[in-house]
Amino acid sequence: MSNRVITISREFGSGGRTVGKKVAQALGLPCYDRELLQKIAKESGFNENYVKDAGEYAPGGFLATAFSHRGFAPTNEDYLWEVQYRVITELAEQGPCVIVGRCADYILRGKADCLRVFIHADLDFRARRIVEVYGEREASPEQRIRDKDKRRAAYHRFYTDMKWGHAQNYDITLNSGTLGIDRCAEIIQGIYENKVE
Amino acid sequence: MSNRVITISREFGSGGRTVGKKVAQALGLPCYDRELLQKIAKESGFNENYVKDAGEYAPGGFLATAFSHRGFAPTNEDYLWEVQYRVITELAEQGPCVIVGRCADYILRGKADCLRVFIHADLDFRARRIVEVYGEREASPEQRIRDKDKRRAAYHRFYTDMKWGHAQNYDITLNSGTLGIDRCAEIIQGIYENKVE
Repeated sequence: MSNRVITISREFGSGGRTVGKKVAQALGLPCYDRELLQKIAKESGFNENYVKDAGEYAPGGFLATAFSHRGFAPTNEDYLWEVQYRVITELAEQGPCVIVGRCADYILRGKADCLRVFIHADLDFRARRIVEVYGEREASPEQRIRDKDKRRAAYHRFYTDMKWGHAQNYDITLNSGTLGIDRCAEIIQGIYENKVE
Repeated sequence: MSNRVITISREFGSGGRTVGKKVAQALGLPCYDRELLQKIAKESGFNENYVKDAGEYAPGGFLATAFSHRGFAPTNEDYLWEVQYRVITELAEQGPCVIVGRCADYILRGKADCLRVFIHADLDFRARRIVEVYGEREASPEQRIRDKDKRRAAYHRFYTDMKWGHAQNYDITLNSGTLGIDRCAEIIQGIYENKVE
């Protein structure tokens, strides 16, 4: 039987990454988030910060080319996508784990027994949280959120043709703003344990 | 403090209604589904079957007018919406309960402490299930599902301006096809009990 993997997609500031870490810790599973970036950086030869940013940009520039015709030559982002695809597939083959972001839900479709999770929260909750977690920036927290979400959605759509944040793409979606980050982690843990038996 | 209400929106054939009944039974709460239709029918003076169908049609015909300009005169559907709005608001004021369908999540926003749930499943699961539950019809199960879902989405959009099935509109969305109907009910029950304390 294939390994059981939890994939977590998340809105910026919703605490989805923290949920992933808590779930992994409670279940004694590895959580691939920062480690995933490092692996992709190592295998691709790109800098880790570049890998991080490129995971949120559709190739050739945000939106401009995501919706228009582009040339045939693969871009750096396309190459990165291939490496990411391979790294995530290999990680899932190694054993049960939690993978945060990077379209893992799409990459592992049909290949692993995934519990596909999406974490979101309303704008106010996220705005307060990103200032707490990441500090103040020049742009307002609301603007930073809108920008990040748009990029993630465009990236997801470009490479997967799935609509980011549509309930139908996931086994479970949770509002961390109303349910709380800890409770989200407990719910996912409960579902995973129940399924594994 | 306002009463705590569970609202359940659902794709046709996903078993959302069954989930609602199971949750209500487990928690000892009234479940308004058929009873809701009866109340609306009684208060509006319309036939129950008309009320049932009208809850899935945007006024003046499906899609045609949902996206175009229409006259100022309120339609039967608009009147029905007003009655539905009043009945659902009154039910939520009476005490904790489960309400299935009829845009209750939207109607009760800001008025009740709602746990907003959306239940969905993939087309194959729903096609098998509607034949089991409702029997064969002339149209294929897939066609019946597409038709019903489109109507519900258009109705929801027309009256609420919310996008049906978008994770962001709910506290939790669950895939009954992968998680199972019983498990969906248990998860919702767990969240409700945990919140009430």
